[in-house]
Amino acid sequence: MKELSSVSWQLSTCQVIQNPIGIFDSGIGGLTVVKAIQAALPAERLIYFGDTARVPYGPKSQVTIRKYAADDTAILMRYQPKLIIVACNTVSALALDVVEKACGNIPVIGVLKAGASLAVQVTQNKRIGVIGTQATVCSNAYAFAINQQDSGIEVISQACPLFVPLAEEGFINHPATKLVAEHYLSEIRKQDIDTLVLGCTHYPILRQVIEETIGKEIRIIDSAEAVAYRTRELLSESGLLNHSTKTAIPHLLVSDLPQKFSMLYQLFMGSELPDVDLVEV
Amino acid sequence: MKELSSVSWQLSTCQVIQNPIGIFDSGIGGLTVVKAIQAALPAERLIYFGDTARVPYGPKSQVTIRKYAADDTAILMRYQPKLIIVACNTVSALALDVVEKACGNIPVIGVLKAGASLAVQVTQNKRIGVIGTQATVCSNAYAFAINQQDSGIEVISQACPLFVPLAEEGFINHPATKLVAEHYLSEIRKQDIDTLVLGCTHYPILRQVIEETIGKEIRIIDSAEAVAYRTRELLSESGLLNHSTKTAIPHLLVSDLPQKFSMLYQLFMGSELPDVDLVEV
Repeated sequence: MKELSSVSWQLSTCQVIQNPIGIFDSGIGGLTVVKAIQAALPAERLIYFGDTARVPYGPKSQVTIRKYAADDTAILMRYQPKLIIVACNTVSALALDVVEKACGNIPVIGVLKAGASLAVQVTQNKRIGVIGTQATVCSNAYAFAINQQDSGIEVISQACPLFVPLAEEGFINHPATKLVAEHYLSEIRKQDIDTLVLGCTHYPILRQVIEETIGKEIRIIDSAEAVAYRTRELLSESGLLNHSTKTAIPHLLVSDLPQKFSMLYQLFMGSELPDVDLVEV
Repeated sequence: MKELSSVSWQLSTCQVIQNPIGIFDSGIGGLTVVKAIQAALPAERLIYFGDTARVPYGPKSQVTIRKYAADDTAILMRYQPKLIIVACNTVSALALDVVEKACGNIPVIGVLKAGASLAVQVTQNKRIGVIGTQATVCSNAYAFAINQQDSGIEVISQACPLFVPLAEEGFINHPATKLVAEHYLSEIRKQDIDTLVLGCTHYPILRQVIEETIGKEIRIIDSAEAVAYRTRELLSESGLLNHSTKTAIPHLLVSDLPQKFSMLYQLFMGSELPDVDLVEV
């Protein structure tokens, strides 16, 4: 009996290993997370849901964001994921408990905690800067997550609402973006931080101008990379890492197909848009 | 019998005169229309619905925009409006027929046609520029509306997607806004237009920088003012103008209460936020 149950455990574990990692975001920003996980774990099957019909979540109220988080999780749960990644900083900040409740035993990684943990490991002088949307910054969730791990760390936050539209307009190296970056980062630059968390999945697109403006001596934490690192760690610990040598192509779901979607996909992923499935929310 | 029916007609007309004008937009941009109508027709009762939970409509697909247009109209119809104003350029461009169908006999004014008509009256050299969101410009609806009235007019259009977030961030006189305006308007400036339609309700907020960049010799058509003009005309023709000397306070409905709503209301209306009702969409 013991042997049989061991075989069936192995079988079921094998099945779960093949199951996809579910990732969701309010729109296309979470594709930076898809890209980072593809680079780190190319064999993993990824299902990405972008709620492009209701983007952006950032400026919306907490009640609305929590409702959307439940909807998004339910969509991914149809695909029996072995892990759910919340690539949306706003949901990670305001509704991670909603996602965890809807996922039951399936582990959940929030982009916010992953970025916060890596920043805590990296900082030397215990002064961390965080930039993000208005909602993420107002929620104070990064400071909370960082101080839960080390209450001696000072967190200085700054909302940068124009960074998302500038990134989506492809204003990557435009002088206007430089001026906007100066506007947002001039105060935080004076605060003697040694680490800056990009607390919004769009911001890696503007990493160069952010880095130049804040100063190259400050270590940038890209939360997409932090999520990929934490995903490998968690799957490895639970024996669910897919060691196949085949490279999986991500499966894309969206709630709307905006006119600029193909251009934005190219901007975020650096490759042509594959087939996309439309789901109703 | 004839006299009785004339009395009941007068009674019912009197009732209708007291009914509100319903106005909707994807978000808060349509408040520029509310402001223009308040200034022109202070006695009219106004009910404004801003679909702040689903803003922006601009980048979304036509199917989604048409569904939202039907929802928005249904919300206003509960208040028995004597007139419906579509303050959203995107809906005016892609779904005015949906609104008209849902309104039955109630007249509908679309911001787009109102702006187009005024531009046709104003242009001397028959070369009109139109700026708006990606969706409005891609729909070609302004060119269509203008050429329906005068097929000899040349329409030159330009999408300016960053103007909305810049206006909402309060970057009214910021050098970055000037650079973005230069970026968007440099081509259209060379096209020998004598009239420029602000084809998005947010753009009046940035009117000064737009005017300086395009050149003061070009006549700016503010579509909010055009709507107010057309509203007075239409109510007057149908005997439904409210001649009361009382000033009515607009009734505000929104589908979400974003954190910045109060600041944005102040920016658009120049006055403190009154009570707001939350409706579900």
